Amino acid sequence: MNETELDVVAVGNALVDVLSHEEHAFLNRSGLARGTATMVDLEHSDEVYGMLGPTTESSGGSAANTIAGLASLGGRGAFIGQVADDDFGRVFAHDLAALGVRFHTGPASGDLPTGRCLVVVTPDAQRTMCTYLGISSALGPDAVDDRLIAAAAVTYLEGYLWDQPPAKEAIRAAAAAAHAAGRRVALTLSDPFCVDRHRDEFRELVESDVDVLFANELEICSLYEENHFDDALTRVRDVCAVAALTRSEAGAVVVGDGEVHVVDAVPVDAVVDTTGAGDQFAAGFLYGLTHGLPLGVTGRLGALCASEVIGHLGPRPAVSLRELAGPLIAGA
Amino acid sequence: MNETELDVVAVGNALVDVLSHEEHAFLNRSGLARGTATMVDLEHSDEVYGMLGPTTESSGGSAANTIAGLASLGGRGAFIGQVADDDFGRVFAHDLAALGVRFHTGPASGDLPTGRCLVVVTPDAQRTMCTYLGISSALGPDAVDDRLIAAAAVTYLEGYLWDQPPAKEAIRAAAAAAHAAGRRVALTLSDPFCVDRHRDEFRELVESDVDVLFANELEICSLYEENHFDDALTRVRDVCAVAALTRSEAGAVVVGDGEVHVVDAVPVDAVVDTTGAGDQFAAGFLYGLTHGLPLGVTGRLGALCASEVIGHLGPRPAVSLRELAGPLIAGA
Repeated sequence: MNETELDVVAVGNALVDVLSHEEHAFLNRSGLARGTATMVDLEHSDEVYGMLGPTTESSGGSAANTIAGLASLGGRGAFIGQVADDDFGRVFAHDLAALGVRFHTGPASGDLPTGRCLVVVTPDAQRTMCTYLGISSALGPDAVDDRLIAAAAVTYLEGYLWDQPPAKEAIRAAAAAAHAAGRRVALTLSDPFCVDRHRDEFRELVESDVDVLFANELEICSLYEENHFDDALTRVRDVCAVAALTRSEAGAVVVGDGEVHVVDAVPVDAVVDTTGAGDQFAAGFLYGLTHGLPLGVTGRLGALCASEVIGHLGPRPAVSLRELAGPLIAGA
Repeated sequence: MNETELDVVAVGNALVDVLSHEEHAFLNRSGLARGTATMVDLEHSDEVYGMLGPTTESSGGSAANTIAGLASLGGRGAFIGQVADDDFGRVFAHDLAALGVRFHTGPASGDLPTGRCLVVVTPDAQRTMCTYLGISSALGPDAVDDRLIAAAAVTYLEGYLWDQPPAKEAIRAAAAAAHAAGRRVALTLSDPFCVDRHRDEFRELVESDVDVLFANELEICSLYEENHFDDALTRVRDVCAVAALTRSEAGAVVVGDGEVHVVDAVPVDAVVDTTGAGDQFAAGFLYGLTHGLPLGVTGRLGALCASEVIGHLGPRPAVSLRELAGPLIAGA
């Protein structure tokens, strides 16, 4: 099955998460909308940071979290994203290398620091994010290594990138390189507000360039301006070869090859922090997809990986997903 | 009772902890001795870092952890320590400011980065540390603000500082300033190997300058080269006005004003990470000492604070110690 050198190469924002527990009132004080991801400038980021209680730092970035999860499953991944030559940049690079993920985008020089995402976790385990991209906003088509793209069965792209014109070009370049090499292109819509900002372009991109689409319920409904999940599902079935639509505690619906699989969420003892749930669903799904697992099993693997990450703080697995998945991926 | 503007000013290394879970075999591979704190140069630190799995970063430093705990109890604290103008330095400063701790030692310019402590947590919940001091090694007497020292009832000093000649001078300057202002001087011996390296000087320092001594069993036995805890206890009673000697799960013995209190450890459901146990014991003890609590209650408050921090990852409290302590500090 694995005739490519790599399973997945991901292209995304290289961020360090700065995580803090806050009461609900913090969201009002800081003007952040619960559960969203807001892009801010450095001044605004520093202002919110100054309001936060003590924080912990760990590597983040949506697509980077996914590739970390893929590596934890035993998959072979690479990452393309831009860091600066600073502490956070070194942390980000270390944490991918420690998992065996190839990350050869060198640090950029200049005044912009490595990007950071302030993650506010409220008592309902919801996370509200405030991202300053920093040097990640300089990610452009030059960073896309065509040979790396060609070496991977799937190129996985992060919708968040669409906010930055050079990164948008990087997405287009990566998709073109993947298809030129006969590989598949996967995209996550990332965030409902991100979809709102770029609906027409995303629809066109999904139709023309995306083989595997990841979206949650809000995102897919926003993309097609449908009120009912089922209607959005019908729309996407006509457009994408494979789509994985996640619905939080309601599980996921996976469509592809004329099949539809309704996947239950995996129960967890306590939801601690939902950060990374979508990212880790994608990790499991991409592993299954690139290892020849049946589509239904692939969906269940995604749900299992998502369940692990919401049981603890932080957006990346705290245990070996390969051990956790056990029989689900045996022989893959 | 609180006639001073501050309860405690702490002088210590300003470090960011870089924490990783590793199997026991990692200690052999990396040459680190289980449960110890080793000082290394940047090259060695980077070498060990390169061997670590994915890490999380959070503010650390022994005395800084103590002052964070004191603030969590509602105490009024300040910190003196040296950071650089980099991401880790900003993280360290933010996390103290977020707790209301005064930290006005400005970042030093130059080539040295903010210090970091690689913390390896093994499955036995033991932590093994590998510290690169970076710019913290430049901490010297110039950083000691006599007015700040005079404003605090207790000046708390970290034994780790004794490894660096300029920091040693900072300790002497801080102790002199505190006594000149009629304040008390507290010292933690920090680490048994640190005591081995500086035994004669520490004995002289303890005898001449220390009013309140913190040590664990290994440290106090090493200081007086005694094999039995009880013999070391007898020695220290003649020398220090107050001594708090911690013994892990065996609790602590607190001596002072002719009293001896044997304090039980507070049971915890699961010991997750012992990092910061001694630091948080000192936080509770210093709070009690500066708020007129009876010596036995002061010891129990230390034990309670230590029990909180070993129940989770990281060296600083994860909950409000003031709420946790409840009736123990009511009215204080």
